[in-house]
Amino acid sequence: MAFGWIDEQAAARRRAGLVRTLRPRPADSPLLDLASNDYLGLARHPEIIEGAAEAARRWGGGATGSRLVTGTTELHGELERELADFCGFEAALVFSSGYAANLAAVTALAPHGSLVVSDAGNHASLIDGCRLARGTTQVVAHADPDAVRKALSTAKSPAITVSDTVFSVDGDAAPLAELAAACREYGAGLVVDDAHGLGVLGDGGRGAPHAAGLAGAPDVVVTVTLSKSLGSQGGAVLGPAHVIDHLVNAARTFIFDTGLAPAATGAALAALRLLRREPERAARAREVARALHTRLTASGHEAVRPDAAVVSVRAPSPDQAVRWAADCRSAGLAVGCFRPPSVPDGVSRLRLTARADLTEGQIDRAVGIIGDTRP
Amino acid sequence: MAFGWIDEQAAARRRAGLVRTLRPRPADSPLLDLASNDYLGLARHPEIIEGAAEAARRWGGGATGSRLVTGTTELHGELERELADFCGFEAALVFSSGYAANLAAVTALAPHGSLVVSDAGNHASLIDGCRLARGTTQVVAHADPDAVRKALSTAKSPAITVSDTVFSVDGDAAPLAELAAACREYGAGLVVDDAHGLGVLGDGGRGAPHAAGLAGAPDVVVTVTLSKSLGSQGGAVLGPAHVIDHLVNAARTFIFDTGLAPAATGAALAALRLLRREPERAARAREVARALHTRLTASGHEAVRPDAAVVSVRAPSPDQAVRWAADCRSAGLAVGCFRPPSVPDGVSRLRLTARADLTEGQIDRAVGIIGDTRP
Ligand SMILES: Cc1ncc(COP(=O)(O)O)c(C=O)c1O
Ligand SMILES: Cc1ncc(COP(=O)(O)O)c(C=O)c1O
Repeated sequence: MAFGWIDEQAAARRRAGLVRTLRPRPADSPLLDLASNDYLGLARHPEIIEGAAEAARRWGGGATGSRLVTGTTELHGELERELADFCGFEAALVFSSGYAANLAAVTALAPHGSLVVSDAGNHASLIDGCRLARGTTQVVAHADPDAVRKALSTAKSPAITVSDTVFSVDGDAAPLAELAAACREYGAGLVVDDAHGLGVLGDGGRGAPHAAGLAGAPDVVVTVTLSKSLGSQGGAVLGPAHVIDHLVNAARTFIFDTGLAPAATGAALAALRLLRREPERAARAREVARALHTRLTASGHEAVRPDAAVVSVRAPSPDQAVRWAADCRSAGLAVGCFRPPSVPDGVSRLRLTARADLTEGQIDRAVGIIGDTRP
Repeated sequence: MAFGWIDEQAAARRRAGLVRTLRPRPADSPLLDLASNDYLGLARHPEIIEGAAEAARRWGGGATGSRLVTGTTELHGELERELADFCGFEAALVFSSGYAANLAAVTALAPHGSLVVSDAGNHASLIDGCRLARGTTQVVAHADPDAVRKALSTAKSPAITVSDTVFSVDGDAAPLAELAAACREYGAGLVVDDAHGLGVLGDGGRGAPHAAGLAGAPDVVVTVTLSKSLGSQGGAVLGPAHVIDHLVNAARTFIFDTGLAPAATGAALAALRLLRREPERAARAREVARALHTRLTASGHEAVRPDAAVVSVRAPSPDQAVRWAADCRSAGLAVGCFRPPSVPDGVSRLRLTARADLTEGQIDRAVGIIGDTRP
């Protein structure tokens, strides 16, 4: 039987208690949401919804083709200009997902003969970018500029260093300024994924590179997603104009993929404009994260101090993490549950996300439920 | 300078006349569109637009998380059930793009030690899937079941054969029934990308696998996009339920990617329902393609006989292809222009797409302009 071998894997997963199943949610879920990446609470904001609906009405249900054929509308151009301007970069290029943006940035900037230095905690999409790239990848210790320096000193050229700005599992921040300094010593480029930084870190949510003084730097390229703080779908690469032009000509996930749907483009644009008007949302998301962390550690949980809006709480084992998350859910609270093989270090955790629109009462309730259900 | 090397590549592209630039289109373009992949003319259909807008209103601007955390709504479940049912498969899984669906299907079904037999004319996303997969890829001659047989006889196990059903450049169809027979001789799985078949081929647009009698086969997996005939964005994998469960547990572009935006999900669902109600749209797209081909060859153009809705017309050189497409555009007609490095054989062509909603008058006009501007 052609696909018989997958049944053995499925049985092994069942034995290990690692089966994943989809749980469709209703539109009016009664759960308190600390699981989504909707950091600013914008996904269901009326302006974002209207941005999506209006774009669909004006431009249609899909982009109808790849970006170089019919898939670039003036709306895509607007979003690219406003995103680049907001984050402080010369140019931007929008993709159908943050995943596709990461594949594009890494593959197009790591040609045959080049070196890619990649943080051990990087997101799957950056790792897949490294695997697809023609260059050679060297994985280095997590958040370690000296390890980056050492790898770069092996002196292939050209070279890039690739890192998340905020790591998705533990929510810790990369040492961006030091990474940039290390890259500059060796004439290497720095490519950072600000998926969890945009909208949360930096002045008014301009992102981690902006906060680190790297916005607009000629040797820095940033990827972002439109699917987290901006409450939509899609991704983008930001950087010097000649790098963006290079991606238009060389990145396969740009050239051979249908353009981002107008509704997603319009929703992201509406979110960006709202964030400009209400910059305090970014600081509020960070404040909620700190409040969650403070109260959780005060009640004896082992939680990582959040650098952005992700709060990670350690669980004793994969099983217990799953049961803990399920018990939270039964008590009315949705939390994320990360366990092998999705975690690089094998440590299972609950993953909580702070939303800018959480009230003090909701924070209390969440902390209470997490404590009550603790394994 | 970190990214200095890309300027040499840019200069080489300029010298070769191969620079690609984005051309944002207005919402009310006066051009006659034979360039998009909107085969059924649904992208701007009021029902599809309302499907997008209503989904955004009900579910928000984005899915807010990966499919296994918060990113699966009941709307995703509905689309998956209806897609599987329409195409005749047991189960379906929706992705943020057809590109992501292809990466998922190939990587998850080609584990370490396996063999992937891949058609030389396959789409970039299947090729990237092969590159990312842990198995070994063997590229075989285009549309050649004997070559597939020969590759499979090298007898690694497990093995899959991977092919487009309709090749995106020339619009020719793969010999699906023969490929399936070849796979069965060797106990291999068949993974086919029906991006350009869904909505156009098979009974009422059920796709090329359905037309070839392969729907629901235990050894066949189909990928589709929601971005062409269905006028939206996204992709899906269709197949036996245990294969779909395997993807949920193993496919990185599923697990680590935000779910498809509600608006795109709703637009695709509306298109699917409309296609069920108006099955004649599929036949009409094929009819328009045949009419285009007949009239173009009658006036001396070298065009490939279309198996679906793509009509490919050869151009004498990359330069002349670009000029030809530009002249068509000046005369009011949008056509695609494929040239190196996007074409595997180095032959440049105009790529025309038949839309089910083209009138006889529009077909006449298109053929007239292509003839008048011929290099
Ligand atoms: C760090 C990081 N990068 C990239 C992505 C992919 O972005 P998207 O889901 O928009 O494709 C994600 C999560 O989904 C992420 O957490
Ligand atoms: C044959 C084929 N497969 C897959 C894709 C990718 O699908 P999507 O654009 O929806 O990501 C395309 C075109 O874009 C295609 O032509």
